[in-house]
Amino acid sequence: MPMWHVHHPEGIYTAEERQEFAARVTALYAESLGLPRFYVSVAFHEFSPDELFVGGEPNDRYVMVWIDHIARRTPDPGRRRWWMDMIDKKLAHFLGDRGLHWEIHIDDTPFEFWTIDGYSPPAPGSADEQRWAAENKPSPLTGEQ
Amino acid sequence: MPMWHVHHPEGIYTAEERQEFAARVTALYAESLGLPRFYVSVAFHEFSPDELFVGGEPNDRYVMVWIDHIARRTPDPGRRRWWMDMIDKKLAHFLGDRGLHWEIHIDDTPFEFWTIDGYSPPAPGSADEQRWAAENKPSPLTGEQ
Amino acid sequence: MPMWHVHHPEGIYTAEERQEFAARVTALYAESLGLPRFYVSVAFHEFSPDELFVGGEPNDRYVMVWIDHIARRTPDPGRRRWWMDMIDKKLAHFLGDRGLHWEIHIDDTPFEFWTIDGYSPPAPGSADEQRWAAENKPSPLTGEQ
Repeated sequence: MPMWHVHHPEGIYTAEERQEFAARVTALYAESLGLPRFYVSVAFHEFSPDELFVGGEPNDRYVMVWIDHIARRTPDPGRRRWWMDMIDKKLAHFLGDRGLHWEIHIDDTPFEFWTIDGYSPPAPGSADEQRWAAENKPSPLTGEQ
Repeated sequence: MPMWHVHHPEGIYTAEERQEFAARVTALYAESLGLPRFYVSVAFHEFSPDELFVGGEPNDRYVMVWIDHIARRTPDPGRRRWWMDMIDKKLAHFLGDRGLHWEIHIDDTPFEFWTIDGYSPPAPGSADEQRWAAENKPSPLTGEQ
Repeated sequence: MPMWHVHHPEGIYTAEERQEFAARVTALYAESLGLPRFYVSVAFHEFSPDELFVGGEPNDRYVMVWIDHIARRTPDPGRRRWWMDMIDKKLAHFLGDRGLHWEIHIDDTPFEFWTIDGYSPPAPGSADEQRWAAENKPSPLTGEQ
Protein backbone atom coordinates (compact mmCIF):
# COMPACT_ATOMS: atom_id res chain seq x y z
CA MET A 1 0.00 0.00 0.00
CA PRO A 2 -0.54 2.38 -1.56
CA MET A 3 -1.85 0.12 -4.28
CA TRP A 4 -2.65 1.75 -7.60
CA HIS A 5 -4.94 0.16 -10.16
CA VAL A 6 -4.72 1.82 -13.56
CA HIS A 7 -7.64 0.80 -15.76
CA HIS A 8 -6.90 1.85 -19.31
CA PRO A 9 -8.00 1.20 -22.91
CA GLU A 10 -5.81 -1.28 -24.76
CA GLY A 11 -2.80 -0.03 -26.64
CA ILE A 12 -2.38 3.39 -25.05
CA TYR A 13 0.75 2.53 -23.02
CA THR A 14 3.77 0.52 -24.09
CA ALA A 15 5.49 -1.78 -21.59
CA GLU A 16 8.21 0.87 -21.17
CA GLU A 17 5.66 3.58 -20.49
CA ARG A 18 3.95 1.44 -17.90
CA GLN A 19 7.22 1.04 -16.07
CA GLU A 20 7.92 4.80 -16.27
CA PHE A 21 4.42 5.47 -14.97
CA ALA A 22 4.98 3.10 -12.04
CA ALA A 23 8.40 4.57 -11.33
CA ARG A 24 6.97 8.06 -11.21
CA VAL A 25 4.19 7.00 -8.84
CA THR A 26 6.75 5.31 -6.61
CA ALA A 27 8.97 8.40 -6.57
CA LEU A 28 5.98 10.53 -5.59
CA TYR A 29 5.45 8.56 -2.39
CA ALA A 30 9.13 8.00 -1.60
CA GLU A 31 10.14 11.63 -2.11
CA SER A 32 7.06 13.49 -0.87
CA LEU A 33 6.14 11.27 2.06
CA GLY A 34 9.26 9.23 2.77
CA LEU A 35 7.46 5.93 2.28
CA PRO A 36 9.51 2.78 1.67
CA ARG A 37 9.57 2.27 -2.09
CA PHE A 38 8.42 -1.35 -1.86
CA TYR A 39 5.18 -0.12 -0.24
CA VAL A 40 4.07 1.18 -3.62
CA SER A 41 2.51 -1.23 -6.08
CA VAL A 42 0.99 -0.36 -9.44
CA ALA A 43 -1.15 -2.78 -11.45
CA PHE A 44 -2.19 -2.01 -15.03
CA HIS A 45 -5.48 -3.43 -16.27
CA GLU A 46 -6.00 -3.23 -20.02
CA PHE A 47 -9.53 -3.27 -21.45
CA SER A 48 -10.88 -3.71 -24.96
CA PRO A 49 -13.64 -1.29 -26.08
CA ASP A 50 -16.32 -3.86 -25.29
CA GLU A 51 -15.14 -4.31 -21.70
CA LEU A 52 -14.91 -0.73 -20.41
CA PHE A 53 -17.71 1.82 -20.73
CA VAL A 54 -17.91 5.44 -19.67
CA GLY A 55 -21.30 7.14 -19.62
CA GLY A 56 -22.71 3.97 -21.17
CA GLU A 57 -20.47 4.21 -24.25
CA PRO A 58 -17.40 2.18 -25.28
CA ASN A 59 -14.31 4.04 -24.31
CA ASP A 60 -10.87 4.25 -25.81
CA ARG A 61 -9.56 7.51 -24.31
CA TYR A 62 -10.45 7.32 -20.62
CA VAL A 63 -8.07 6.19 -17.88
CA MET A 64 -9.47 5.30 -14.48
CA VAL A 65 -7.01 5.30 -11.65
CA TRP A 66 -8.20 3.74 -8.43
CA ILE A 67 -5.96 3.90 -5.37
CA ASP A 68 -6.11 2.21 -1.99
CA HIS A 69 -4.47 4.16 0.86
CA ILE A 70 -4.04 3.60 4.58
CA ALA A 71 -6.63 5.26 6.79
CA ARG A 72 -4.78 7.77 8.84
CA ARG A 73 -2.27 9.11 6.35
CA THR A 74 -4.49 11.90 5.10
CA PRO A 75 -7.43 12.69 7.37
CA ASP A 76 -7.57 16.40 6.45
CA PRO A 77 -9.77 17.39 3.46
CA GLY A 78 -7.49 20.29 2.48
CA ARG A 79 -4.47 18.04 2.45
CA ARG A 80 -6.39 15.51 0.45
CA ARG A 81 -7.03 18.07 -2.29
CA TRP A 82 -3.40 19.17 -2.21
CA TRP A 83 -2.36 15.57 -2.73
CA MET A 84 -4.79 15.06 -5.61
CA ASP A 85 -3.50 18.22 -7.30
CA MET A 86 0.06 17.01 -6.97
CA ILE A 87 -0.77 13.61 -8.44
CA ASP A 88 -2.57 15.24 -11.35
CA LYS A 89 0.44 17.46 -12.07
CA LYS A 90 3.12 14.82 -11.67
CA LEU A 91 1.31 12.34 -13.91
CA ALA A 92 0.18 14.79 -16.61
CA HIS A 93 2.73 13.25 -18.99
CA PHE A 94 0.77 9.99 -18.97
CA LEU A 95 -2.72 11.53 -18.92
CA GLY A 96 -3.76 15.05 -19.90
CA ASP A 97 -0.65 15.78 -21.98
CA ARG A 98 -1.71 12.97 -24.32
CA GLY A 99 -5.22 14.26 -24.75
CA LEU A 100 -6.61 11.46 -22.61
CA HIS A 101 -9.42 11.88 -20.14
CA TRP A 102 -8.83 10.54 -16.70
CA GLU A 103 -10.29 10.00 -13.29
CA ILE A 104 -8.36 9.47 -10.10
CA HIS A 105 -9.84 8.23 -6.89
CA ILE A 106 -8.41 7.20 -3.54
CA ASP A 107 -10.01 5.12 -0.85
CA ASP A 108 -8.83 5.30 2.75
CA THR A 109 -8.67 1.89 4.40
CA PRO A 110 -7.89 0.58 7.90
CA PHE A 111 -4.27 0.44 9.04
CA GLU A 112 -4.66 -2.60 11.32
CA PHE A 113 -5.93 -4.67 8.41
CA TRP A 114 -2.60 -4.66 6.62
CA THR A 115 0.45 -6.91 6.60
CA ILE A 116 3.55 -7.24 4.40
CA ASP A 117 5.41 -10.53 4.48
CA GLY A 118 3.46 -11.19 7.66
CA TYR A 119 4.54 -7.98 9.42
CA SER A 120 2.18 -5.26 10.59
CA PRO A 121 3.88 -2.25 9.00
CA PRO A 122 5.47 0.22 11.44
CA ALA A 123 3.86 3.48 12.56
CA PRO A 124 4.19 6.37 10.07
CA GLY A 125 7.43 8.27 10.66
CA SER A 126 8.79 5.77 13.19
CA ALA A 127 12.41 4.60 13.28
CA ASP A 128 11.17 1.24 12.02
CA GLU A 129 9.53 2.82 9.01
CA GLN A 130 12.65 4.84 8.26
CA ARG A 131 14.73 1.65 8.35
CA TRP A 132 12.25 -0.13 6.08
CA ALA A 133 12.52 2.84 3.71
CA ALA A 134 16.34 2.91 3.80
CA GLU A 135 16.67 -0.85 3.25
CA ASN A 136 13.67 -1.00 0.91
CA LYS A 137 12.41 -4.19 2.53
CA PRO A 138 10.49 -5.27 5.63
CA SER A 139 12.33 -6.49 8.72
CA PRO A 140 11.45 -7.26 12.37
CA LEU A 141 10.08 -4.27 14.28
CA THR A 142 11.93 -2.79 17.25
CA GLY A 143 8.95 -0.68 18.30
CA GLU A 144 11.17 2.43 18.59
CA GLN A 145 9.38 5.68 17.73
CA MET B 1 -17.48 7.56 -10.03
CA PRO B 2 -19.59 5.61 -9.50
CA MET B 3 -17.30 2.93 -10.84
CA TRP B 4 -18.78 -0.52 -11.37
CA HIS B 5 -16.69 -3.65 -11.60
CA VAL B 6 -18.65 -6.62 -12.93
CA HIS B 7 -16.78 -9.88 -12.29
CA HIS B 8 -18.37 -12.62 -14.33
CA PRO B 9 -17.71 -16.14 -15.66
CA GLU B 10 -16.51 -16.21 -19.26
CA GLY B 11 -19.05 -16.38 -22.03
CA ILE B 12 -22.17 -15.28 -20.18
CA TYR B 13 -22.42 -11.83 -21.80
CA THR B 14 -21.91 -10.87 -25.44
CA ALA B 15 -20.22 -7.57 -26.30
CA GLU B 16 -23.69 -6.13 -27.10
CA GLU B 17 -25.08 -7.27 -23.76
CA ARG B 18 -22.17 -5.67 -21.93
CA GLN B 19 -22.94 -2.37 -23.58
CA GLU B 20 -26.65 -2.69 -22.76
CA PHE B 21 -25.74 -3.52 -19.16
CA ALA B 22 -23.50 -0.44 -18.95
CA ALA B 23 -26.14 1.76 -20.59
CA ARG B 24 -28.74 0.63 -18.09
CA VAL B 25 -26.42 1.32 -15.15
CA THR B 26 -25.68 4.77 -16.56
CA ALA B 27 -29.38 5.55 -17.01
CA LEU B 28 -30.02 4.52 -13.41
CA TYR B 29 -27.69 7.21 -12.07
CA ALA B 30 -28.55 9.87 -14.65
CA GLU B 31 -32.32 9.49 -14.29
CA SER B 32 -32.67 8.68 -10.59
CA LEU B 33 -29.97 10.96 -9.19
CA GLY B 34 -29.28 13.46 -11.97
CA LEU B 35 -25.60 12.54 -12.15
CA PRO B 36 -23.61 13.51 -15.24
CA ARG B 37 -23.54 10.45 -17.47
CA PHE B 38 -19.75 10.52 -17.88
CA TYR B 39 -19.43 10.03 -14.10
CA VAL B 40 -20.53 6.43 -14.55
CA SER B 41 -17.97 3.87 -15.62
CA VAL B 42 -18.50 0.13 -15.91
CA ALA B 43 -15.65 -2.36 -16.30
CA PHE B 44 -16.29 -6.02 -17.11
CA HIS B 45 -13.83 -8.60 -15.83
CA GLU B 46 -14.17 -12.06 -17.35
CA PHE B 47 -12.89 -15.09 -15.45
CA SER B 48 -12.30 -18.70 -16.46
CA PRO B 49 -13.54 -21.41 -14.04
CA ASP B 50 -10.04 -21.81 -12.59
CA GLU B 51 -9.74 -18.09 -11.75
CA LEU B 52 -12.96 -17.38 -9.86
CA PHE B 53 -14.22 -19.46 -6.93
CA VAL B 54 -17.33 -19.15 -4.81
CA GLY B 55 -17.53 -21.10 -1.56
CA GLY B 56 -14.24 -22.74 -2.56
CA GLU B 57 -15.65 -24.19 -5.79
CA PRO B 58 -15.13 -23.18 -9.41
CA ASN B 59 -17.94 -20.99 -10.53
CA ASP B 60 -19.65 -20.49 -13.84
CA ARG B 61 -23.01 -18.97 -12.77
CA TYR B 62 -22.09 -16.31 -10.24
CA VAL B 63 -21.74 -12.60 -11.01
CA MET B 64 -20.02 -10.37 -8.49
CA VAL B 65 -20.71 -6.67 -8.84
CA TRP B 66 -18.47 -4.36 -6.84
CA ILE B 67 -19.23 -0.64 -6.86
CA ASP B 68 -17.26 2.35 -5.60
CA HIS B 69 -19.41 5.35 -4.55
CA ILE B 70 -18.68 8.76 -3.09
CA ALA B 71 -18.99 9.05 0.68
CA ARG B 72 -21.81 11.45 1.30
CA ARG B 73 -24.25 10.47 -1.40
CA THR B 74 -26.03 7.86 0.69
CA PRO B 75 -25.37 8.13 4.42
CA ASP B 76 -28.78 6.81 5.47
CA PRO B 77 -29.12 3.01 5.92
CA GLY B 78 -32.76 2.99 4.81
CA ARG B 79 -31.91 4.84 1.63
CA ARG B 80 -29.05 2.46 1.04
CA ARG B 81 -31.39 -0.49 1.08
CA TRP B 82 -33.85 1.32 -1.20
CA TRP B 83 -31.02 1.90 -3.65
CA MET B 84 -29.88 -1.72 -3.52
CA ASP B 85 -33.45 -2.90 -4.18
CA MET B 86 -33.73 -0.59 -7.16
CA ILE B 87 -30.45 -1.82 -8.63
CA ASP B 88 -31.51 -5.43 -8.19
CA LYS B 89 -34.80 -4.75 -9.96
CA LYS B 90 -33.43 -2.66 -12.81
CA LEU B 91 -30.68 -5.16 -13.59
CA ALA B 92 -32.71 -8.35 -13.22
CA HIS B 93 -32.58 -8.81 -17.00
CA PHE B 94 -28.81 -9.40 -16.76
CA LEU B 95 -28.84 -11.38 -13.52
CA GLY B 96 -31.74 -13.22 -11.88
CA ASP B 97 -33.85 -13.44 -15.05
CA ARG B 98 -31.10 -15.59 -16.58
CA GLY B 99 -30.94 -17.97 -13.67
CA LEU B 100 -27.60 -16.52 -12.58
CA HIS B 101 -26.62 -15.97 -8.98
CA TRP B 102 -25.27 -12.58 -8.13
CA GLU B 103 -23.86 -10.40 -5.41
CA ILE B 104 -23.83 -6.64 -5.40
CA HIS B 105 -21.78 -4.56 -3.06
CA ILE B 106 -21.06 -0.84 -2.76
CA ASP B 107 -18.26 0.86 -0.92
CA ASP B 108 -18.51 4.49 0.16
CA THR B 109 -15.31 6.42 -0.40
CA PRO B 110 -14.06 9.97 0.34
CA PHE B 111 -15.26 12.84 -1.84
CA GLU B 112 -12.10 14.96 -1.52
CA PHE B 113 -10.01 12.10 -2.90
CA TRP B 114 -11.51 12.34 -6.36
CA THR B 115 -10.68 14.23 -9.54
CA ILE B 116 -11.82 14.04 -13.17
CA ASP B 117 -9.55 15.53 -15.82
CA GLY B 118 -7.85 17.26 -12.91
CA TYR B 119 -11.02 18.90 -11.56
CA SER B 120 -12.45 18.28 -8.10
CA PRO B 121 -16.03 17.42 -9.06
CA PRO B 122 -18.68 19.97 -8.01
CA ALA B 123 -20.90 19.62 -4.94
CA PRO B 124 -23.91 17.32 -5.39
CA GLY B 125 -26.87 19.24 -6.80
CA SER B 126 -24.87 22.44 -7.42
CA ALA B 127 -25.22 24.56 -10.58
CA ASP B 128 -21.79 23.29 -11.61
CA GLU B 129 -22.89 19.68 -11.35
CA GLN B 130 -26.06 20.42 -13.32
CA ARG B 131 -23.96 22.02 -16.08
CA TRP B 132 -21.59 19.03 -16.11
CA ALA B 133 -24.65 16.79 -16.42
CA ALA B 134 -26.22 18.85 -19.22
CA GLU B 135 -22.97 19.08 -21.22
CA ASN B 136 -21.88 15.55 -20.27
CA LYS B 137 -18.30 16.68 -19.69
CA PRO B 138 -16.24 18.43 -17.02
CA SER B 139 -15.54 22.17 -17.24
CA PRO B 140 -14.11 24.86 -14.93
CA LEU B 141 -16.09 25.36 -11.73
CA THR B 142 -17.88 28.61 -10.95
CA GLY B 143 -18.51 27.67 -7.34
CA GLU B 144 -22.18 28.66 -7.64
CA GLN B 145 -24.54 26.59 -5.50
CA MET C 1 -18.42 -11.10 0.76
CA PRO C 2 -15.79 -11.51 1.91
CA MET C 3 -14.39 -11.08 -1.57
CA TRP C 4 -10.70 -11.82 -2.05
CA HIS C 5 -8.70 -10.51 -4.97
CA VAL C 6 -5.36 -12.26 -5.35
CA HIS C 7 -3.06 -10.29 -7.67
CA HIS C 8 -0.15 -12.49 -8.62
CA PRO C 9 2.66 -12.78 -11.18
CA GLU C 10 1.89 -15.18 -14.03
CA GLY C 11 2.79 -18.80 -13.65
CA ILE C 12 3.20 -19.03 -9.88
CA TYR C 13 0.00 -20.99 -9.22
CA THR C 14 -1.47 -23.91 -11.17
CA ALA C 15 -5.22 -24.20 -11.62
CA GLU C 16 -5.24 -26.88 -8.88
CA GLU C 17 -3.32 -24.63 -6.49
CA ARG C 18 -5.73 -21.79 -7.10
CA GLN C 19 -8.61 -24.03 -6.12
CA GLU C 20 -6.76 -25.23 -2.99
CA PHE C 21 -6.01 -21.61 -2.10
CA ALA C 22 -9.69 -20.68 -2.49
CA ALA C 23 -10.80 -23.74 -0.52
CA ARG C 24 -8.48 -22.84 2.34
CA VAL C 25 -9.74 -19.25 2.42
CA THR C 26 -13.32 -20.51 2.44
CA ALA C 27 -12.61 -22.92 5.29
CA LEU C 28 -11.05 -20.08 7.29
CA TYR C 29 -14.30 -18.11 7.29
CA ALA C 30 -16.63 -21.08 7.60
CA GLU C 31 -14.76 -22.69 10.49
CA SER C 32 -13.51 -19.65 12.40
CA LEU C 33 -16.51 -17.37 11.98
CA GLY C 34 -19.34 -19.69 10.96
CA LEU C 35 -20.00 -17.80 7.73
CA PRO C 36 -21.98 -19.49 4.98
CA ARG C 37 -19.43 -20.92 2.55
CA PHE C 38 -21.03 -19.30 -0.49
CA TYR C 39 -20.34 -15.88 1.07
CA VAL C 40 -16.68 -16.35 0.26
CA SER C 41 -15.46 -15.56 -3.23
CA VAL C 42 -11.87 -15.58 -4.43
CA ALA C 43 -10.76 -14.08 -7.75
CA PHE C 44 -7.26 -14.62 -9.11
CA HIS C 45 -5.76 -11.90 -11.29
CA GLU C 46 -2.63 -12.91 -13.17
CA PHE C 47 -0.16 -10.24 -14.32
CA SER C 48 2.79 -10.30 -16.69
CA PRO C 49 5.99 -8.55 -15.53
CA ASP C 50 5.11 -5.46 -17.55
CA GLU C 51 1.70 -5.09 -15.91
CA LEU C 52 2.51 -5.26 -12.18
CA PHE C 53 5.20 -3.18 -10.49
CA VAL C 54 6.35 -3.06 -6.89
CA GLY C 55 8.55 -0.17 -5.79
CA GLY C 56 8.65 0.95 -9.43
CA GLU C 57 10.19 -2.33 -10.64
CA PRO C 58 8.70 -5.25 -12.57
CA ASN C 59 7.71 -7.94 -10.18
CA ASP C 60 7.58 -11.69 -10.43
CA ARG C 61 7.64 -12.75 -6.77
CA TYR C 62 5.11 -10.48 -5.07
CA VAL C 63 1.51 -11.45 -4.31
CA MET C 64 -0.95 -8.73 -3.40
CA VAL C 65 -4.09 -9.88 -1.65
CA TRP C 66 -6.85 -7.34 -1.38
CA ILE C 67 -9.96 -8.24 0.61
CA ASP C 68 -13.34 -6.57 0.98
CA HIS C 69 -15.11 -7.22 4.30
CA ILE C 70 -18.36 -6.08 5.85
CA ALA C 71 -18.09 -3.08 8.19
CA ARG C 72 -19.12 -4.35 11.58
CA ARG C 73 -17.53 -7.78 11.60
CA THR C 74 -14.24 -6.61 13.06
CA PRO C 75 -14.40 -3.16 14.64
CA ASP C 76 -11.71 -3.86 17.25
CA PRO C 77 -8.07 -3.15 16.26
CA GLY C 78 -6.70 -5.98 18.41
CA ARG C 79 -9.04 -8.47 16.82
CA ARG C 80 -8.10 -7.16 13.41
CA ARG C 81 -4.46 -7.95 14.06
CA TRP C 82 -5.37 -11.39 15.40
CA TRP C 83 -7.27 -12.05 12.21
CA MET C 84 -4.41 -10.87 10.01
CA ASP C 85 -2.00 -13.12 11.89
CA MET C 86 -4.27 -16.09 11.42
CA ILE C 87 -4.62 -15.45 7.70
CA ASP C 88 -0.86 -15.15 7.34
CA LYS C 89 -0.35 -18.46 9.13
CA LYS C 90 -3.09 -20.41 7.39
CA LEU C 91 -1.99 -19.30 3.94
CA ALA C 92 1.78 -19.62 4.45
CA HIS C 93 1.76 -22.66 2.16
CA PHE C 94 0.83 -20.42 -0.79
CA LEU C 95 2.97 -17.43 0.19
CA GLY C 96 5.96 -17.33 2.51
CA ASP C 97 6.68 -21.07 2.35
CA ARG C 98 7.39 -20.64 -1.36
CA GLY C 99 9.80 -17.77 -0.86
CA LEU C 100 7.26 -15.31 -2.24
CA HIS C 101 6.73 -11.84 -0.86
CA TRP C 102 3.19 -10.87 -0.11
CA GLU C 103 0.92 -8.14 1.10
CA ILE C 104 -2.53 -8.63 2.55
CA HIS C 105 -5.01 -5.87 3.04
CA ILE C 106 -8.65 -5.73 4.11
CA ASP C 107 -11.13 -2.95 3.62
CA ASP C 108 -14.21 -2.66 5.79
CA THR C 109 -17.30 -1.70 3.82
CA PRO C 110 -20.95 -0.90 4.65
CA PHE C 111 -23.32 -3.74 5.52
CA GLU C 112 -26.46 -2.11 4.11
CA PHE C 113 -24.85 -1.79 0.70
CA TRP C 114 -24.81 -5.51 0.09
CA THR C 115 -27.18 -8.02 -1.51
CA ILE C 116 -26.92 -11.64 -2.63
CA ASP C 117 -29.46 -12.89 -5.18
CA GLY C 118 -31.41 -9.79 -4.24
CA TYR C 119 -31.50 -10.54 -0.50
CA SER C 120 -30.02 -8.28 2.18
CA PRO C 121 -27.92 -10.84 4.04
CA PRO C 122 -29.08 -11.70 7.58
CA ALA C 123 -27.57 -10.22 10.75
CA PRO C 124 -24.33 -11.88 11.90
CA GLY C 125 -25.05 -14.86 14.13
CA SER C 126 -28.81 -14.77 13.52
CA ALA C 127 -30.92 -17.89 12.95
CA ASP C 128 -31.24 -16.81 9.33
CA GLU C 129 -27.48 -16.68 8.90
CA GLN C 130 -27.10 -20.09 10.51
CA ARG C 131 -29.66 -21.53 8.11
CA TRP C 132 -27.90 -19.90 5.12
CA ALA C 133 -24.67 -21.46 6.39
CA ALA C 134 -26.20 -24.92 6.88
CA GLU C 135 -27.91 -24.93 3.47
CA ASN C 136 -25.04 -23.09 1.78
CA LYS C 137 -27.44 -20.89 -0.16
CA PRO C 138 -29.57 -17.79 0.37
CA SER C 139 -33.27 -18.12 1.19
CA PRO C 140 -36.07 -15.80 2.38
CA LEU C 141 -35.39 -14.20 5.77
CA THR C 142 -37.59 -14.94 8.78
CA GLY C 143 -36.11 -12.08 10.82
CA GLU C 144 -35.58 -14.42 13.80
CA GLN C 145 -32.52 -13.58 15.91
